[in-house]
Amino acid sequence: MEECRNQSGKRQAPIGVFDSGVGGLTVVREIMRQIPEEPIVYFGDTARVPYGSKSRSTIIRYSRQIIRFLRTQGVKAIVIACNTASAYALDEVRKELDIPIIGVVRPGAKVAAKVTQNGKIGVIGTEGTIHSRLYTEIIHEIRPEYEVLGRSCPLFVPLVEEQWLKDPVTEEVASRYLKELQDSGIDTLILGCTHYPLLRSTVGKIMGEKVTLVNPAYETALELKSLLQKEDLSYEGEEPADKYRFFVSDDPTKFQKFAEWILPCSDAETKQIRIDEY
Amino acid sequence: MEECRNQSGKRQAPIGVFDSGVGGLTVVREIMRQIPEEPIVYFGDTARVPYGSKSRSTIIRYSRQIIRFLRTQGVKAIVIACNTASAYALDEVRKELDIPIIGVVRPGAKVAAKVTQNGKIGVIGTEGTIHSRLYTEIIHEIRPEYEVLGRSCPLFVPLVEEQWLKDPVTEEVASRYLKELQDSGIDTLILGCTHYPLLRSTVGKIMGEKVTLVNPAYETALELKSLLQKEDLSYEGEEPADKYRFFVSDDPTKFQKFAEWILPCSDAETKQIRIDEY
Repeated sequence: MEECRNQSGKRQAPIGVFDSGVGGLTVVREIMRQIPEEPIVYFGDTARVPYGSKSRSTIIRYSRQIIRFLRTQGVKAIVIACNTASAYALDEVRKELDIPIIGVVRPGAKVAAKVTQNGKIGVIGTEGTIHSRLYTEIIHEIRPEYEVLGRSCPLFVPLVEEQWLKDPVTEEVASRYLKELQDSGIDTLILGCTHYPLLRSTVGKIMGEKVTLVNPAYETALELKSLLQKEDLSYEGEEPADKYRFFVSDDPTKFQKFAEWILPCSDAETKQIRIDEY
Repeated sequence: MEECRNQSGKRQAPIGVFDSGVGGLTVVREIMRQIPEEPIVYFGDTARVPYGSKSRSTIIRYSRQIIRFLRTQGVKAIVIACNTASAYALDEVRKELDIPIIGVVRPGAKVAAKVTQNGKIGVIGTEGTIHSRLYTEIIHEIRPEYEVLGRSCPLFVPLVEEQWLKDPVTEEVASRYLKELQDSGIDTLILGCTHYPLLRSTVGKIMGEKVTLVNPAYETALELKSLLQKEDLSYEGEEPADKYRFFVSDDPTKFQKFAEWILPCSDAETKQIRIDEY
């Protein structure tokens, strides 16, 4: 796609959003709600999913390839809609880019630091996200005295993908993972993986009403909105024909089913690309 | 590595074994037991694991890349130690090769057809393996009248990787997955994923003593042994210095821990390579 040469052209360019697979669609859903006029190009790395158990260097390499692909789609800004990739790759790839890029970790950390009353915050996420300690770092930048307790929950993603959302097995697994966080007296819990909002009711039941659950997807969409306004990039003009475009690295069939479940209004076609060629 | 030009050189070449990750080490363990003199080069695709939920075309592409890598290591024969890759890719890649290659599905299917008394066989595996229906096809080649019932068990691999092997959660998940197979009156059950032998006791407890559990890893090692003998490729000579070599596509740290758990005698170094460059 030819590079946009003026601000009006830039404004009409789409937002690029990427994730290891389908989880990032929960972020897309929030962007669609908060800034419904913005066109979106989504990439889900379904041929290499999951990211949560892989190493930092591999996730940085994958993120660079995806960003190179999104640039070919002429995006005006990028959202890393994956906690693991935000935690491992955002700081690295931002240095290499001349368009704005945000992740989901900072917005989630900021709102948690704002809503906690007792300064005790829990974070659940993949091994990679928890191991990176990025949520803790950002919260400590804001309030160094706050306590942050992280716990990885490796079975949550497969349980969501099995669609066992309100299920005795999922409840038992969640009770076990959340035990220590329950005992620690946190009053705020960050759902630090894009799949986890789908387990909100199970997690909420276990943690009880006094614990506020933070979904970074919502805050990320708000941060994107204010970023676009600040950079004079908010969409202006008529609604484009191909407003939402979806790309994946594996066969699109399963992705499309999941997309219809998470984004009930979307009937956009999904195309498969060879991401390791970027 | 220079190509081996004579039969004695070929005999001293290693066996190439590959899997999506660590599961194939259960096959390596059996090869080490059955033919301890054979050198082995193992590749685990830890940067793209798991294979079980990905499409046929992607698995074929990944298998071709891995075979190209194994050829650079001068292997004399290849074992696909992954049920999903055996089911989806073996027939495709065999046509392209001038060295012997075997998978784990055919040996497992053959032994199940031999041990069943009532002609009712169950197969558990990944979505890909069950969807391919390859176990059913091979059993029907041998005995068309046999009944074969397949069931995918997507949570078994994550449960093994969480090391919840004998655990109430795993028992509950297994009971649910195996319910239909229990009711169907099968007398033989194929553990059609290289992770599942690690759940043998849980699965055995649920299925009961009258159901024979078949681990294709054992039969694959025997088939490899007789193939090497038939092709005059069995190892001869002194034990090489680097008898066992391990390669992975992601950071080796986690793989090495798992390898030490599955192969207690191995202290071989594991190297990381960029598999998408092959």
